[in-house]
Amino acid sequence: MSEGSGPMFDDENAEFTSRPKDPPNRRAFLVGATSILGLTAAHLFLSPRLNHAQDVPVDPAKVPGALASGYGARSQFEPTQRLTLPQRSRTPLQDLHGIITPSALHFERHHNGVPLIDPARHRLLVHGLVEHPLIFTMDELKRFPATSRMAFIECAGNAGKEWKGPKGKTVQEIQGLTSTSEWTGVRLSTVLQETHLKPEATWMLAEGSDAAAMTRSIPLDRVWDEALLCYAQNGEPIRPEQGYPLRLLLPGWEGNTCIKWLRRLKLVSAPLMTREETSKYTDLMPDGTARQFTFDMEAKSVITSPSGGQQVKEKGFIEIRGLAWSGRGRVTTVEVSVDGGKTWNEAELQKPILPKCHTRFRFAWEWDGQEAILQSRCTDETGYQQPTLKQLIKVRGTNSYYHNNAIQSWKVDEDGNVQNVQV
Amino acid sequence: MSEGSGPMFDDENAEFTSRPKDPPNRRAFLVGATSILGLTAAHLFLSPRLNHAQDVPVDPAKVPGALASGYGARSQFEPTQRLTLPQRSRTPLQDLHGIITPSALHFERHHNGVPLIDPARHRLLVHGLVEHPLIFTMDELKRFPATSRMAFIECAGNAGKEWKGPKGKTVQEIQGLTSTSEWTGVRLSTVLQETHLKPEATWMLAEGSDAAAMTRSIPLDRVWDEALLCYAQNGEPIRPEQGYPLRLLLPGWEGNTCIKWLRRLKLVSAPLMTREETSKYTDLMPDGTARQFTFDMEAKSVITSPSGGQQVKEKGFIEIRGLAWSGRGRVTTVEVSVDGGKTWNEAELQKPILPKCHTRFRFAWEWDGQEAILQSRCTDETGYQQPTLKQLIKVRGTNSYYHNNAIQSWKVDEDGNVQNVQV
Repeated sequence: MSEGSGPMFDDENAEFTSRPKDPPNRRAFLVGATSILGLTAAHLFLSPRLNHAQDVPVDPAKVPGALASGYGARSQFEPTQRLTLPQRSRTPLQDLHGIITPSALHFERHHNGVPLIDPARHRLLVHGLVEHPLIFTMDELKRFPATSRMAFIECAGNAGKEWKGPKGKTVQEIQGLTSTSEWTGVRLSTVLQETHLKPEATWMLAEGSDAAAMTRSIPLDRVWDEALLCYAQNGEPIRPEQGYPLRLLLPGWEGNTCIKWLRRLKLVSAPLMTREETSKYTDLMPDGTARQFTFDMEAKSVITSPSGGQQVKEKGFIEIRGLAWSGRGRVTTVEVSVDGGKTWNEAELQKPILPKCHTRFRFAWEWDGQEAILQSRCTDETGYQQPTLKQLIKVRGTNSYYHNNAIQSWKVDEDGNVQNVQV
Repeated sequence: MSEGSGPMFDDENAEFTSRPKDPPNRRAFLVGATSILGLTAAHLFLSPRLNHAQDVPVDPAKVPGALASGYGARSQFEPTQRLTLPQRSRTPLQDLHGIITPSALHFERHHNGVPLIDPARHRLLVHGLVEHPLIFTMDELKRFPATSRMAFIECAGNAGKEWKGPKGKTVQEIQGLTSTSEWTGVRLSTVLQETHLKPEATWMLAEGSDAAAMTRSIPLDRVWDEALLCYAQNGEPIRPEQGYPLRLLLPGWEGNTCIKWLRRLKLVSAPLMTREETSKYTDLMPDGTARQFTFDMEAKSVITSPSGGQQVKEKGFIEIRGLAWSGRGRVTTVEVSVDGGKTWNEAELQKPILPKCHTRFRFAWEWDGQEAILQSRCTDETGYQQPTLKQLIKVRGTNSYYHNNAIQSWKVDEDGNVQNVQV
């Protein structure tokens, strides 16, 4: 809320002699905004005083700006970061707009660091149950017919700690292992057809060239139509932490199956029971058995604003904003509750609504200043509706870590503070 | 084409004793690819020798990689840059994939540099023919209902020099003043409604806070439905050279009307005839009159690969790739000619096809090794078809600089060299 004074506004160049006697009224409607009767653009023209602490001109219009650059950078005033652990980092969902995640803020998960790979030396080996084992260079892969699509990738462990109670504080910390990019590459099916699969080739082992040699077994029939060997992300070469120079993309499947730094596809007749699909990435059920090969990321949504750690500053209009996605296809509906799930209201979905892609939703809320529990739940085109945590625990127990797509609840207290809760 | 040897492949760990006696056959079909009978993944496991020139491990899988980072960067092997002059830079269209332009490679055009603006001090003044002049802070603008959309922005001067013959060499140099982003902000109409426009307010002056105080007059009725006050681009805050912290987006209109570093909207009853809409950004016609307020960017397409300065290395399959767009709405058809416009073939359009947005097209071509002239032309949903340069000159003469949406021709000679020509 501007008070009509301060460094940008100054009497020196006033065009009009009359100025308001009192500070302008605060307006409660929609946004607070300040009447500036008596102030004109002339107030914006000041002498080019510099704020030496930051070398930021008081009036940018009085100082010639920076020249064009080969490769741009964000503003020095925008410090948003991924939240990092050595082998993972989380997307700051609370700071994002739209559906594209900037590549520099796409979440990371690696098992022994991000390898440094010279693309001129990188090879993809395709072997096993094929008539013609082949090795491809990156240039060869780029000569195939290409295709692009937008898709989210979510780590199976997103919100994993929340099975045991409300552990995380912010949406970034709790739900930040999901991101959306435009991916470009060649269809896996195009490349496999070159090798002439043997009839018994029903699975493939995909292996990365990272120092963990990350490997997963993939059933071919389920990925044939959509799997891509990606070399580009958001228009430019895929980023190192996303698998440069080559990544397997299995749209809608848990992130760890989308093998990064892809160097090998071995065609096999059954899953190979690698470490990552036995000791990890399985779901321990109440009866002691483990769900294995739970590839699909089920429908999920989360309110990103207001969200944990934020503060709602004023009563009145607030646009509740969030993201919804489903590994099964398109999101069809997102509903928002402000009373902890007693009543639900349909949110507006930003178009285009793309399959297996983050979808932005918005809901106009008038906050009355009382405590409120904010929730969102989405339904996808299969008819599946995002469950409550209680519903999920009823089926899965509390020994699970992966595949927690439960409704996220945020409590707004009377002071406007927003907190992660489970209701 | 891998020869099955070289630094990544080594006898030391061979699993099989037999190796091919001769270098593998080169395959002419689709991609060259190498038979690797007798080679297995074991060949990929080498001792971690380092290439000290670049500190790149010979086998990345043998060296723990880099830890997670707060804000990612692209690979050191990817040096693609914008082509810069002091007050502009051009997008490397030949290197892009999909439809999103990475923000760091979005073209630039400024008239006195990129101002350095502290968003906490930035204000938008809305005044003139309004009942309630208002000043908005960035926080206030962000509290309004938000909306996102993907849209191209093209400089009116894109391909401007080509009116006088084939001047440029690469697609970046000739056509690189167009880029696509996902933009997020508040609708102009939402903000203007807060000020209560007077009935005679039919135009507005939009002014930037750059050192050129870039200004354009905008007719309100034509932009009411779509104009956005944008604060985000591709998910994060708008980049400095794109108008940080606030830019006017008029989807489909020439880039210079999308005022960057927006600080002022003055509601008026007629255009103010600013420098940028009188001495510049007009089109001199053969009869000596000037077309003025030619806001719309008409339908255009360009083949980005193969394109000027590139070389087609082998006969056989080549995927011709390019971009098409229209300031009037969606692209409906792109046709490709390989004989200088004598015959045309329909290209495949990558979905989703979004209005006023780059659309990626692809066309499968078998090059016979003979000279060829590659062209693309698009048609938009209004039925308008991209013209030849001759058709354009017939109407506009050769005194124009702006609004050259003519078909771009690339000559492929018998050695595969690609060159800008006009036919």
